[in-house]
Amino acid sequence: MIIESVKNQKVKDWKKLQTRKGREKAESYLIEGPHIIEEAAKAEAPIVEVILTEGMDLSSYPFKESPIVYTVTEKVMFELTDTETPQGIMAVCKMAEPVSPQNGKLLLLDAIQDPGNLGTIIRTADSAGYDGVLLGAGTVDPYNSKVLRSTQGSIFHLPVRKANLVEEVKSLKQSGMHIYATEVSGGTPYQEVEHQSNFAVILGNEANGVSEELQTLADVNVYIPIYGDAESLNVAVAAGILMYGLLRS
Amino acid sequence: MIIESVKNQKVKDWKKLQTRKGREKAESYLIEGPHIIEEAAKAEAPIVEVILTEGMDLSSYPFKESPIVYTVTEKVMFELTDTETPQGIMAVCKMAEPVSPQNGKLLLLDAIQDPGNLGTIIRTADSAGYDGVLLGAGTVDPYNSKVLRSTQGSIFHLPVRKANLVEEVKSLKQSGMHIYATEVSGGTPYQEVEHQSNFAVILGNEANGVSEELQTLADVNVYIPIYGDAESLNVAVAAGILMYGLLRS
Repeated sequence: MIIESVKNQKVKDWKKLQTRKGREKAESYLIEGPHIIEEAAKAEAPIVEVILTEGMDLSSYPFKESPIVYTVTEKVMFELTDTETPQGIMAVCKMAEPVSPQNGKLLLLDAIQDPGNLGTIIRTADSAGYDGVLLGAGTVDPYNSKVLRSTQGSIFHLPVRKANLVEEVKSLKQSGMHIYATEVSGGTPYQEVEHQSNFAVILGNEANGVSEELQTLADVNVYIPIYGDAESLNVAVAAGILMYGLLRS
Repeated sequence: MIIESVKNQKVKDWKKLQTRKGREKAESYLIEGPHIIEEAAKAEAPIVEVILTEGMDLSSYPFKESPIVYTVTEKVMFELTDTETPQGIMAVCKMAEPVSPQNGKLLLLDAIQDPGNLGTIIRTADSAGYDGVLLGAGTVDPYNSKVLRSTQGSIFHLPVRKANLVEEVKSLKQSGMHIYATEVSGGTPYQEVEHQSNFAVILGNEANGVSEELQTLADVNVYIPIYGDAESLNVAVAAGILMYGLLRS
């Protein structure tokens, strides 16, 4: 049976996942497009439902457990997507249980507001082999469709969860993690800090940087030197320079 | 006198600067908003005309030579901008004479297509203290309004020009510059190359990377290791990691 009406109760339920509130209530979120659904399936993320337009083939997806499959009209699909050109396949995924890495390399984000920046930063944390990303208050919801798209599937490769950063930093310090907070200028150039194997780096938001409270809690405040005439770096670029820069031995 | 009609000849001339062809013919381009116009003025870029809506104040801009000032209605301004919320001030800037740095640190871009990525990369090259950016065939026009906006004014801080990258690389090699081409994988990790003071790094496009011809011409092919499960890095982030990474002594 094909779901044709946008007033169908299933469609109404899915549309609720377009808002943060709806996602938090259902503890679920929507992902869209073959690439990210394949990444989710490979990572054994809990995909519970798949929504297809007619003619889409599901056989190549490595689902661990078979999801319930719904076929919908293009009109219904258009209601569910926020893209101009829907890709014909979406899925409903359960939010993962929060995990708390207490060693390795962590990225802590203090109020990153742009969805594209957040997604790109999560993708870079995955690339750089970080063990988790913690999102402080004021950070955009990681299950926002634009964030998910920008992660290119990396959201399924490492733990990403909301956290109270002040509490988290206190607890990480007790576990022996070294804490870096970034400043716009002042502190130590990131190239000059001593190498650490277990550390967390806190990155601030586009306008205000890391909060004073977090800077005070950190072991070292670091910054990326500006050698030219630019006023600042894009926050996703800064995150990449720092995350890779702090890996060196 | 306030220009009220979108059919006014000046308005028609300005609108031609919204296309690459029009900009190349007039050897001029439009910039928008107080921040970038201030950066242009500070850098003594050749601003020939300023377009204002009523009530905008020009006195704080450090223009080297006074531009001709036109006042327009909000309707006319809306015709000229590609933003949702015009900032009330635009300017017409002459394209700079191409300059050719033959030493220092250069970034060469082979077919970067996304305007936001190109602008962010130019901003990062400025931050990292690079001496110029050369744009190969297939790279988006740097005078595109989205590129200019993403540069945050850095387009005025270092030479950015179109070039035949193959010819350019041959000439740079003769000047004793060391040439790095980036690969997606293979080659030498960027962290392991020997430090150079005078070098050019070639970055490829989002999908295909650096052309084979340029890779063959390069002294060393470098790549950014992926330590996690991501397939690739965003090209603007990769540019930042490499540009800063190659600075180390």
